[in-house]
Amino acid sequence: MKELQERIIRDGRALSETVLKVDAFLNHQVDAELTMKIGQAFADLFRSEKVTKVLTVEASGIHFALATAYALGVPFVYAKKKKAVTLSDDVYSAPVYSFTRKENYQISIAKQYLSAEERVLIVDDFLATGAALVGLTQIVADAGAHLVGVGAVVEKSFQEGRGLLEKAGVRVESLARIKSMKPGEIHFVETTPVHTS
Amino acid sequence: MKELQERIIRDGRALSETVLKVDAFLNHQVDAELTMKIGQAFADLFRSEKVTKVLTVEASGIHFALATAYALGVPFVYAKKKKAVTLSDDVYSAPVYSFTRKENYQISIAKQYLSAEERVLIVDDFLATGAALVGLTQIVADAGAHLVGVGAVVEKSFQEGRGLLEKAGVRVESLARIKSMKPGEIHFVETTPVHTS
Repeated sequence: MKELQERIIRDGRALSETVLKVDAFLNHQVDAELTMKIGQAFADLFRSEKVTKVLTVEASGIHFALATAYALGVPFVYAKKKKAVTLSDDVYSAPVYSFTRKENYQISIAKQYLSAEERVLIVDDFLATGAALVGLTQIVADAGAHLVGVGAVVEKSFQEGRGLLEKAGVRVESLARIKSMKPGEIHFVETTPVHTS
Repeated sequence: MKELQERIIRDGRALSETVLKVDAFLNHQVDAELTMKIGQAFADLFRSEKVTKVLTVEASGIHFALATAYALGVPFVYAKKKKAVTLSDDVYSAPVYSFTRKENYQISIAKQYLSAEERVLIVDDFLATGAALVGLTQIVADAGAHLVGVGAVVEKSFQEGRGLLEKAGVRVESLARIKSMKPGEIHFVETTPVHTS
């Protein structure tokens, strides 16, 4: 998605070779119009899959899930994050390890909102280690639902998330794939390097 | 908002005189089309105020903030919740007491995304005790920005939130105002009582 890549160049900040700040327009302050276009892009990529439900995890996936679900004309569900591991018969849950915070947490979804008949599209803001997204795919499998794929707004292609998902047979679509970066420089997959200020 | 009230009657569940579950369509599973209409309703109510930024708090306010910001053609910012009280020169923050979880937490916004020139509309899913919303108004005041008002999707009018905000001179607009409820019965302000199954 060209507009997104240009925006990452303009307003994103590579703080290191692994940390990209996009809180000016994607995950703290949010460009509402760009977000709706991102949802439209995911909808276009997966429209033929007859998606019945979009799935994401709180908090930074929620606005992209709304935009995607609205463009597809379906509802979305956001998994809740909890620190304590509380088991319940009413929820599907999966453990997730956060590399950013160096701690385990649990994501969960009320069973009544994910049935075996669903055709599920998972979306999130980042695909990096894939931890949260792999957790979501486990929940879809537990529900016996059909996973049509994963849509990530920004992919750190130098990390293992895409590989993990593809090895599990999951279709992965990312709107901006970062091949490598360092302060002042961001390279996308299959594009010429672009220098930032 | 008639469609919202009808939906609360149909799919909401009053678990007690104070607890309303709307996780079938507002804050776990989410009706994307209804959410966009809710954003349009807030935009219509506050359009003459020349809003420059919509403000909410993660997680359950995010989709309503996107819908409202998109309808107004402005960006939105969502405050982050943190348990630990960490002071920083780079953020505006406010303490919030959660009556649901019986614990204190902190909400914060990067200073660079809220300047004194902004005309801010705050939106959230619920207005009950007003704790989180009062915290957001404090952040707007700290930034020296102008608060045009607060929009709540669902208001528990029997709790003190609206009173607290109005006493501080804040305009409050709620799309569904619940006067009282108990299992099987939900009464809205200025409407005839409606019985639910």
